[in-house]
Amino acid sequence: MGIMVQKYGGSSVANVERIQHVAQRVVENRRKGNDMIVVVSAMGDTTDELIEKAAQINPHPSSREMDMLLSTGEQISISLLAMAIEAAGEPVISLTGGMSGILTDTAHKKARIASIDPTRVLKELADGKIVIVAGFQGVTKDWNITTLGRGGSDTTAVALAAAVKADLCEIYTDVEGVFTADPRKVPHASQLPEISYDEMLELAKLGAQVLHPRSVELARKHDVPLVVRSTFSDHPGTRVVEVNRMEQVLVRGVTLDNNIARIAVANVPDQPGIAFGLFKKLADHHITIDMIIQNLNHAAKNDISFTVALDDLHEAAQVSREYLNEIGGQGEVLEKENVSKISIVGTGITGNAEVASKLFGTLFDLGINIEMISTSEIKISCIIDSEKCDEALRQLHTAFALDRLDIV
Amino acid sequence: MGIMVQKYGGSSVANVERIQHVAQRVVENRRKGNDMIVVVSAMGDTTDELIEKAAQINPHPSSREMDMLLSTGEQISISLLAMAIEAAGEPVISLTGGMSGILTDTAHKKARIASIDPTRVLKELADGKIVIVAGFQGVTKDWNITTLGRGGSDTTAVALAAAVKADLCEIYTDVEGVFTADPRKVPHASQLPEISYDEMLELAKLGAQVLHPRSVELARKHDVPLVVRSTFSDHPGTRVVEVNRMEQVLVRGVTLDNNIARIAVANVPDQPGIAFGLFKKLADHHITIDMIIQNLNHAAKNDISFTVALDDLHEAAQVSREYLNEIGGQGEVLEKENVSKISIVGTGITGNAEVASKLFGTLFDLGINIEMISTSEIKISCIIDSEKCDEALRQLHTAFALDRLDIV
Repeated sequence: MGIMVQKYGGSSVANVERIQHVAQRVVENRRKGNDMIVVVSAMGDTTDELIEKAAQINPHPSSREMDMLLSTGEQISISLLAMAIEAAGEPVISLTGGMSGILTDTAHKKARIASIDPTRVLKELADGKIVIVAGFQGVTKDWNITTLGRGGSDTTAVALAAAVKADLCEIYTDVEGVFTADPRKVPHASQLPEISYDEMLELAKLGAQVLHPRSVELARKHDVPLVVRSTFSDHPGTRVVEVNRMEQVLVRGVTLDNNIARIAVANVPDQPGIAFGLFKKLADHHITIDMIIQNLNHAAKNDISFTVALDDLHEAAQVSREYLNEIGGQGEVLEKENVSKISIVGTGITGNAEVASKLFGTLFDLGINIEMISTSEIKISCIIDSEKCDEALRQLHTAFALDRLDIV
Repeated sequence: MGIMVQKYGGSSVANVERIQHVAQRVVENRRKGNDMIVVVSAMGDTTDELIEKAAQINPHPSSREMDMLLSTGEQISISLLAMAIEAAGEPVISLTGGMSGILTDTAHKKARIASIDPTRVLKELADGKIVIVAGFQGVTKDWNITTLGRGGSDTTAVALAAAVKADLCEIYTDVEGVFTADPRKVPHASQLPEISYDEMLELAKLGAQVLHPRSVELARKHDVPLVVRSTFSDHPGTRVVEVNRMEQVLVRGVTLDNNIARIAVANVPDQPGIAFGLFKKLADHHITIDMIIQNLNHAAKNDISFTVALDDLHEAAQVSREYLNEIGGQGEVLEKENVSKISIVGTGITGNAEVASKLFGTLFDLGINIEMISTSEIKISCIIDSEKCDEALRQLHTAFALDRLDIV
């Protein structure tokens, strides 16, 4: 009993039957006495269809008009879900992002929420209505429609939950919560009943697709009680908590990210500012760098290696070559696509020597060469050749005793 | 040179090619030095598809949620048209009805415009942008999205033209203006270069589908210079003017409306208040009555005949029967579906005896019985059996010398 925010993703509302299923779930929670705020994404393929239509008309439409177009996707979802709830006999109202008081900055297609004025949402709740909110969108103070970019609907849900001081924020997805590894790749992966915000944040950043990092950060910042669970079952899901109580369990999950590429800028002069200049130029091109290694090679020249998102590989290599030309034409740029980032996540693992040695030992036993390593308080990531990455994922999962025992 | 409002209907933006064609036309007008405001409807079948999706979820959705759903149709059109104009290199911005300052009452699905605050539209024009406005929609003062119902986009265009004191309002459609009769039924129908507001209003009411009566009334009230023309040609179209200058041309057009039905409430007692009670009860059921005839029959009882929209026939007959029961069970209700309303329109025709006699004579020559007649200052309408209605339309068109001479 209290205010409950639920978020349903695109696959949860992909067709009429699923919308009716979601309506049923919402109505049940309402009838248990909860004030319900429901955030929904666009139906299944709607967004892709709209993007394709736009592409036929203009290969480079302005972000402002793309947002005007794409925001219709959620508007369709919210009205249809509201109609399904009306059919079930409960008072309901759908609200766009703007109507829900979600004010954003002006960065179209990747706007950030500046503030939320929950007056309207709270008024509708007070009137006894289930409130359906369009995820992924907001408005600027000059009344232009914006979209929040990747993970936008999760962010809408968490931000609303924070604004109305919700008692619970449930993120519904098509899996039964957060797993120790991607169950599609590791059949023995276990569902985690609990995970800390920090661990969840690392997992989210490392490619576990259940929650977007932005929403996890926001939830941690505002102490939003968060649960990740499945639309298609009654499994209780994974609760994201302040601190992971189970100290003895160090490694909470293993993740794999294949959506990366490595660039090596080799044999550049060993003089100050070279690396700085390179990364400054890449940043000017809005290319995000993940891991970086720089070292002196046998010829007393510098090798600078870094990873980028696979989509950015071509442009990043191009920019790097331009940079080498600008500084005198020395050195060369090498690209490698088939690399993967494999990571283990768990509170306190970098303070535990056994964990690192088990990680490196397992990869060594598989004959896998580690190209780069990076660590944070709660994760260790290795860049490896993609060839054996799936096997590495499964072996690490077993090595860290994450396998479910009830699967043969 | 000045502010030009153009309105393009759903068939004008039905697909990518047509959207690009409209963009070209808008850009040409902009490059001639005009400030352009462009009102668009939803693309072709979008609205029907959305209605069908809603019907699968809820056979009786609330009007409020239907408006939330249907308003996405125009939002898609405006953003795509804006992208097409961007591709042509002109500054442009799309605005929803709400963003354009269109404030309506709260009658969802058939809202009426309460006021227009053109501040945003004028600001965008001043910034040198072509402004694309979503037709058919607005917002209430409590920020709920409304739709304007039938003829809504025409009304948006005319109301905006009035609010910004536009120099011209062009309504684009798929025919080359207003014709003396429906060209699909009367091949010799002539396009009219000019027509008066009053004549246009009668034609619109009588089923000529080029302009909705609401928009004509609004244009007349605010002296909006109105032109009806084709999206698909450069024909100058039909200009709607204050007074038709050509006094000698009496009859301006012949119209046919098959979307009606007749109800006869026969043999009711001849006592005061019976007809009033009947029509009051029908009005309470939101049934609009068109023509009414009441007369004493040979048995000294009253026969009351009236016409309604075909869609309302069943309910109107039902309500009439209930009414007869309430007043004592006398009389009977007869329904007739296959009736048509054939009308001639022209300033001053009811003051000209020759016109009426030519009308009745032509129908008599065809062996057509006139069931009901109604007249206004500028039209005469007859209810006839539908069987020969198309022939009657063509014969009247010829009789009143409206046939084009350049068609054999």
